[in-house]
Amino acid sequence: MSSTVVQHGTASPDLPLDLSLDLPLDLAVNTDRLIRRIEELAWIGRGATGGITREGFSAADRQARSYLMDQAAAAGLVPSVDAAGNILIRRRRAPGAGHRKVLLMGSHLDTVVQAGRLDGAYGVLAALEVVQVVAESGLDPRHEPVAVAFANEEGALFPQPFWGSMVLAGRLADLPLEPLDHHGRPLREPLSLAGGDLGALGSAVWPAGSVAAYLELHVEQGPVLERSATPIGIVDVITGRAVLTVEVRGVAGHAGTTPMDGRRDAVAAAARVALAAESISREQGICRVTTVGQLDVHPNSPNTIADCVRLTADLRDTDAARMQHAEDAFRDALRQIAEQTGTAIDVVARTRSRPVPAAAALRTAIEASAQELGLPHQVLPSGAGHDAQVVADIAPIGMIFVPSIGGLSHVPEEDTKPEDLAAGAQVLLRTALRIAGTRAPRPCAPSQFPDPNRQ
Amino acid sequence: MSSTVVQHGTASPDLPLDLSLDLPLDLAVNTDRLIRRIEELAWIGRGATGGITREGFSAADRQARSYLMDQAAAAGLVPSVDAAGNILIRRRRAPGAGHRKVLLMGSHLDTVVQAGRLDGAYGVLAALEVVQVVAESGLDPRHEPVAVAFANEEGALFPQPFWGSMVLAGRLADLPLEPLDHHGRPLREPLSLAGGDLGALGSAVWPAGSVAAYLELHVEQGPVLERSATPIGIVDVITGRAVLTVEVRGVAGHAGTTPMDGRRDAVAAAARVALAAESISREQGICRVTTVGQLDVHPNSPNTIADCVRLTADLRDTDAARMQHAEDAFRDALRQIAEQTGTAIDVVARTRSRPVPAAAALRTAIEASAQELGLPHQVLPSGAGHDAQVVADIAPIGMIFVPSIGGLSHVPEEDTKPEDLAAGAQVLLRTALRIAGTRAPRPCAPSQFPDPNRQ
Repeated sequence: MSSTVVQHGTASPDLPLDLSLDLPLDLAVNTDRLIRRIEELAWIGRGATGGITREGFSAADRQARSYLMDQAAAAGLVPSVDAAGNILIRRRRAPGAGHRKVLLMGSHLDTVVQAGRLDGAYGVLAALEVVQVVAESGLDPRHEPVAVAFANEEGALFPQPFWGSMVLAGRLADLPLEPLDHHGRPLREPLSLAGGDLGALGSAVWPAGSVAAYLELHVEQGPVLERSATPIGIVDVITGRAVLTVEVRGVAGHAGTTPMDGRRDAVAAAARVALAAESISREQGICRVTTVGQLDVHPNSPNTIADCVRLTADLRDTDAARMQHAEDAFRDALRQIAEQTGTAIDVVARTRSRPVPAAAALRTAIEASAQELGLPHQVLPSGAGHDAQVVADIAPIGMIFVPSIGGLSHVPEEDTKPEDLAAGAQVLLRTALRIAGTRAPRPCAPSQFPDPNRQ
Repeated sequence: MSSTVVQHGTASPDLPLDLSLDLPLDLAVNTDRLIRRIEELAWIGRGATGGITREGFSAADRQARSYLMDQAAAAGLVPSVDAAGNILIRRRRAPGAGHRKVLLMGSHLDTVVQAGRLDGAYGVLAALEVVQVVAESGLDPRHEPVAVAFANEEGALFPQPFWGSMVLAGRLADLPLEPLDHHGRPLREPLSLAGGDLGALGSAVWPAGSVAAYLELHVEQGPVLERSATPIGIVDVITGRAVLTVEVRGVAGHAGTTPMDGRRDAVAAAARVALAAESISREQGICRVTTVGQLDVHPNSPNTIADCVRLTADLRDTDAARMQHAEDAFRDALRQIAEQTGTAIDVVARTRSRPVPAAAALRTAIEASAQELGLPHQVLPSGAGHDAQVVADIAPIGMIFVPSIGGLSHVPEEDTKPEDLAAGAQVLLRTALRIAGTRAPRPCAPSQFPDPNRQ
């Protein structure tokens, strides 16, 4: 692991953690309730062919948010919305709860277009389940368990992915002043409809030290756990990602009348760029995966030599130095291809996130919980990005994965076996209890306290 | 030249032709009138940025058609519209004109989207000019000169390019029964608005033998004449064209979570297809030009390995055997790429036109006219398709090219120097007079005859 990654201050060394847990195994999440909520939520935003579309801050997203808050309230919990639109679900306030650090758990409710039912939603509903079980158990943990549904993780409509977690982690400077959606409509009103307030984002920032730990349970979205028939994945690193938008500019011409030797064909050059990107990972093995997933040709006519191609190259690795090496090698290849093909090739945009390691203590806690439950587990990196990588700015993070059937995600067919969904949630609960430092039940159930919110 | 091309019955051996022409050189087209008409026509369908959009059978196309017919009528000529929507412009009927073979000249008025002012329009207006000059001259040619504006050559809105020439040449069996535009609207009504009649297409068919010759004057649309500073091009062959629509089907996956070794990436495979297409012409030299101009990726997201790419490969050559060899080599390459990449690759559509040679006697007539006018000339193939290649089914064809500035066409910047436009039209007139067999002026101007159309 490179020095860059080690310097990244996410694996907090001072996390106080007693890995032992003497609570009985029958203190467990309610699997039926969890599965029912997953199924109910999956009806919101579902299209005719079964795909789910709940772009962040869309009408469907608002419905999903209402569903979550209704479920929380009906369970005797207290949902609230911060200025960024993040939903936070807490227990009714117990004496002294305000002074405790928070054990934050969650994910997001928003989806890409034509998505499945689990990406994000599973982690939010499992977190709700954990908070509910803790509330119902009468336990009095040292850290206060809070479930969170981060707003607009996917960035499908408003192109600022990780919006909610970025605000919470204080990355206000990285955000656009007046975010616009893909149709040019400003965020202010849809954020307000979701209960947020663009003018008060500062109020949603959590200071470093206020969060004891952040846990995110998620579907793997890849084939690794399924291939090894392992129900529990323990994330060691969320891979870094660089997305380079490459513009190849050639010269348009008639496909029939322009001799081959006079051509500056943007498609022919772009094809070389796509193969160079693939080679960075496949032949040269510089970084873990590289993908050209988007490629747009202009004017895109059979009879015209293209004058412009825009494509994205997505490079990922768990190691920041290898990421940089891969990007350097790719840019070298672009220069060579431009020279060979007589085109101009530029990187016109780049987004980048560094690899983020999980906190070692949280990995250990997840492992202890899986072992306690008799669940096979393995360590793997997260190839996808998650809110956890942003929360890592202010707190130690841990991530638990469950298998994705066929490795599929961001498609309607995305799914996970019910027993794996249940196993992941049980591991989340046991890990949360370990981290929260809960060893003894409180004498009374919370419903026996007067409601502190009624004053 | 391969036997296949020689077998193609376009270079009619029995064209009666006396290449000598004893008419004085001051019998010439009116260059100012021609340029004025080109400029006036260019206002029709012109957008804010100067590009011209007159898709066949659109409202702008109808305006252009009206302009042409008004100009013809004002010049004392007789415009008419056949059932296919082709505009035909004749002299007022002279005694015996009905028994003469026709010397057809023209091109088309319709354009692609955001086109220039010359492609098609130049050839139509020059043909009008020739018919007008012959009418005004009082000459009595053996073959009757007729100008034609073929309907929907480009196929920009109704996807049947060469519509008008195909009907005229009797290719009714190749046409769709009820043509639909790209929005699914049927042709019947717009054809009727243009003066055509979908139910009477048979009436627009010309029998073989009725046309003595067809001449088409056109901008080169490529860089060859400009590079050699030659004002007149004499087309030897209109290149054959095969457009293969290739579908590459892979397996979608998350760009971050799918290991490289498990991928069936449609973009990576399509990039290899594009380079294989290029290689057919560039490295292997099997056919003259090959172009991948259109390429669409699904789902076209930076974060998703593509599951499908559709692209077009456009192969052209003047030799039918080389065309077939190129297509065979390309299909072999597709099979190898499918195997290498784990994708399925199919050719899902193919359109094809054979190479069409110009008639040798017409090439000689064009050459004699250029020489007579002192204009440098060179023989070259037409890389683009033209109505001439369809009319070749029923008549000998000849094509005259003038230089395109920068080799550009199908773009707003398409242009040709005024002196080259004038030179091309003069060559068309002298060639037409040669072919029409006109050697002596009639004693009286046609306006002195009683109008045979008034009966």
